[in-house]
Amino acid sequence: MLRITIWNEYRHEKIHPDVQAVYPDGIHAVIAEALCKDESLSVRVATLDEPEHGLTDEVLEQTDVLMWWGHMAHDEVQDAVVNRVHQRVLGGMGLVVLHSGHFSKVFKKLMGTSCDLHWREAGELERIWTVNPAHPIAQGLPPFFEIPEVEMYGEYFDVPEPDSLVFISWFEGGEVFRSGLCYHRGQGKIFYFRPGHETYPIYYHAHVQHVLRNAVHWCAPTSNPALHFGHVPQFTHQKGDA
Amino acid sequence: MLRITIWNEYRHEKIHPDVQAVYPDGIHAVIAEALCKDESLSVRVATLDEPEHGLTDEVLEQTDVLMWWGHMAHDEVQDAVVNRVHQRVLGGMGLVVLHSGHFSKVFKKLMGTSCDLHWREAGELERIWTVNPAHPIAQGLPPFFEIPEVEMYGEYFDVPEPDSLVFISWFEGGEVFRSGLCYHRGQGKIFYFRPGHETYPIYYHAHVQHVLRNAVHWCAPTSNPALHFGHVPQFTHQKGDA
Amino acid sequence: MLRITIWNEYRHEKIHPDVQAVYPDGIHAVIAEALCKDESLSVRVATLDEPEHGLTDEVLEQTDVLMWWGHMAHDEVQDAVVNRVHQRVLGGMGLVVLHSGHFSKVFKKLMGTSCDLHWREAGELERIWTVNPAHPIAQGLPPFFEIPEVEMYGEYFDVPEPDSLVFISWFEGGEVFRSGLCYHRGQGKIFYFRPGHETYPIYYHAHVQHVLRNAVHWCAPTSNPALHFGHVPQFTHQKGDA
Amino acid sequence: MLRITIWNEYRHEKIHPDVQAVYPDGIHAVIAEALCKDESLSVRVATLDEPEHGLTDEVLEQTDVLMWWGHMAHDEVQDAVVNRVHQRVLGGMGLVVLHSGHFSKVFKKLMGTSCDLHWREAGELERIWTVNPAHPIAQGLPPFFEIPEVEMYGEYFDVPEPDSLVFISWFEGGEVFRSGLCYHRGQGKIFYFRPGHETYPIYYHAHVQHVLRNAVHWCAPTSNPALHFGHVPQFTHQKGDA
Repeated sequence: MLRITIWNEYRHEKIHPDVQAVYPDGIHAVIAEALCKDESLSVRVATLDEPEHGLTDEVLEQTDVLMWWGHMAHDEVQDAVVNRVHQRVLGGMGLVVLHSGHFSKVFKKLMGTSCDLHWREAGELERIWTVNPAHPIAQGLPPFFEIPEVEMYGEYFDVPEPDSLVFISWFEGGEVFRSGLCYHRGQGKIFYFRPGHETYPIYYHAHVQHVLRNAVHWCAPTSNPALHFGHVPQFTHQKGDA
Repeated sequence: MLRITIWNEYRHEKIHPDVQAVYPDGIHAVIAEALCKDESLSVRVATLDEPEHGLTDEVLEQTDVLMWWGHMAHDEVQDAVVNRVHQRVLGGMGLVVLHSGHFSKVFKKLMGTSCDLHWREAGELERIWTVNPAHPIAQGLPPFFEIPEVEMYGEYFDVPEPDSLVFISWFEGGEVFRSGLCYHRGQGKIFYFRPGHETYPIYYHAHVQHVLRNAVHWCAPTSNPALHFGHVPQFTHQKGDA
Repeated sequence: MLRITIWNEYRHEKIHPDVQAVYPDGIHAVIAEALCKDESLSVRVATLDEPEHGLTDEVLEQTDVLMWWGHMAHDEVQDAVVNRVHQRVLGGMGLVVLHSGHFSKVFKKLMGTSCDLHWREAGELERIWTVNPAHPIAQGLPPFFEIPEVEMYGEYFDVPEPDSLVFISWFEGGEVFRSGLCYHRGQGKIFYFRPGHETYPIYYHAHVQHVLRNAVHWCAPTSNPALHFGHVPQFTHQKGDA
Repeated sequence: MLRITIWNEYRHEKIHPDVQAVYPDGIHAVIAEALCKDESLSVRVATLDEPEHGLTDEVLEQTDVLMWWGHMAHDEVQDAVVNRVHQRVLGGMGLVVLHSGHFSKVFKKLMGTSCDLHWREAGELERIWTVNPAHPIAQGLPPFFEIPEVEMYGEYFDVPEPDSLVFISWFEGGEVFRSGLCYHRGQGKIFYFRPGHETYPIYYHAHVQHVLRNAVHWCAPTSNPALHFGHVPQFTHQKGDA
């Protein structure tokens, strides 16, 4: 079983009736349901307003892949928790960052850039094209799929060039966006996935759910022991040593 | 002076009146004029119907960067010339491949893939977005520029993931395309640039011309001697040797 | 079950007694035994001197990942079979290329470069370092492992910069080599792995065998249908279409 | 003229007689002399103990490429200055990070990883191999060059996979290291170069100096205006607009 923790800021859903209408039990509940369709996944959730944002050392140690959704309260995430998640990713925990999570503290810390972009809320059509059909995250997807109404995210997206670029989005209004980005960092793997929103019902979309399931599998940690660094003694190699 | 050779198939222009109307002296003539605006470039041209397609050993030895446009007669390019160009690229000569040159023998040989794509001739608007603003080929360009009427090229574009992705195109009709692709191969550098057509007047476009000038500079060869390969003798390192 | 075909030139073993001493049933037999330790793999073999080199359409259609070892008879591999394998890789079949397979026709065709390198047979110590510990091919390996006596392969190795670089080798005699290289090409994945030789007993090495098992899993194809290319009709997007 | 600022911590040289013996006027003085051999470079220096570490807004605005050497006092660099440099790099200023600068605050902030590694001070031989001979930073270098006595840096080096890997080091004691790493971040370019030390006279080495000159040219900023992000209005494309 791959152990997934879905982290949701979970504020919009409590405050805004129009968000509540789409996600009455929170965005995390819908994502959890999507992941649970895959029986090899064990899913739990955590939210901002829990103690330590629900991301204690214990929870993180029992998490293989963390999924992150945040939007209006990035600044309220405590630096201690951000640092803990950052360390765990470098130590091997997978991280799937969703939509407005591009501006989360932990994603910016891992990327080292501003992670800024262009945006517009105009209910535009998005077409998501696969540009790396050999990649496991593209498994089971058509050449492109559509989401009828979305918030647009446009380039330039200020992130490092990814290790693999899997998806590019086309938007009705004239923009493009690198929408599926794979990174290796330390022992960990990171996938950024653009689709998502608090009022458009993006996470009910069958292909979006499919990508989320593929993504957590790609992000699965290796079982290697922790890396060591620092001073190493003189090595004297002699035939027969090895 | 950087020595550029512009290679043009130069067939459409002789046969089709509508192409002749746009490029009366051939596509190469317009590109040559564009490059000559940069006084650090020395420009010559070569075409398919010349002996050895104008790409003799002597010409290639005097070429720092070769620019390639072909479309209707890829198969008529002799394999001996293809191999000669291929060798020269691995030996350091830069190569800029334009538009329908994606299906040229030499580009396919260098990429190792089918180089296939989707296309449609419908006079659509194209917006070309810079996604690597630190790259020298993006120098002097706005965040995006438009070409009002183009032939569409759409993903999936079957080429290796580039070493740097500089441009992504958006098309009115719903497609995206990785339009500016950088590759290192052996001692040589290759840039694929999508815009171009035989009847749309793409190579008169100021920003397109600007990219072509940037591209040949990026593709400029290093002046290193030829690489050697094969057997190497036993090395005995001793303090004081180096 | 992931279906693996191990292709071996199988000539050295028949001709040279010193090779026979190490690999009495052929290199493929030892590799097959190594892969069969993983019960999720179904393994068959094919060799040069079989009709169509054992790589008929039928065999390739039933192969998820092809492993390739060749050395002294690269030129005897028929171009028709090379093209067939090339097409299958672009269509999704994984390919693991071993050691002297760097000079096989199919690897050169896929890479587009000379695939040349430096070499020396002097029974040197090799240390293989993991430089991408998040990569699944590094799963279960220590920070480095050693092979006590090897043929050296040294840089510059004339291949495209890989999509992921997993291993770098250190050699006693002063050279380094990029030893574990991942490529995506079309729908297929390719892994080049340096270790191997016909008289040094490399494929009996526990860590080498471990890498081979990891590699075929990483190369596993997606189950997507074949890609289509070419002309696409005008798309008219309308709200409510998707 | 490309405007270079060499930043040196400049502490070892004031405190340790053995460092003073090698670099009586500071490491920066020797690097400055090396860069000044290239008449297209305009060079200034800045050090930790100056006000604002010599890196005021004014200095940075007049700097095209910043070179960074630090070792024993990384923590004394004020966060305000780190943030200022970080912003300038994303805004286009080139950054060349040298040797122990891998642990500088600004490099760690840009990489997003621990930037940790293995090390040993044993006066070992280092051989630096070019693995991307097409890259401008490899211009004018032999296939490898040697430094007779160095501090070893060994893998795993915890940094993101580079956009281009130019050099790999071999060390007498059995380690390898990715020694020349290129990154694009925002509008800026970063080059990490391993060689260097406070008591071994690395920066007097002709090939090392040659790399430093190549590196600042590769890091030269584009002259594009600052990037803008955020909300963009609805775009209505019409034929004839562009």
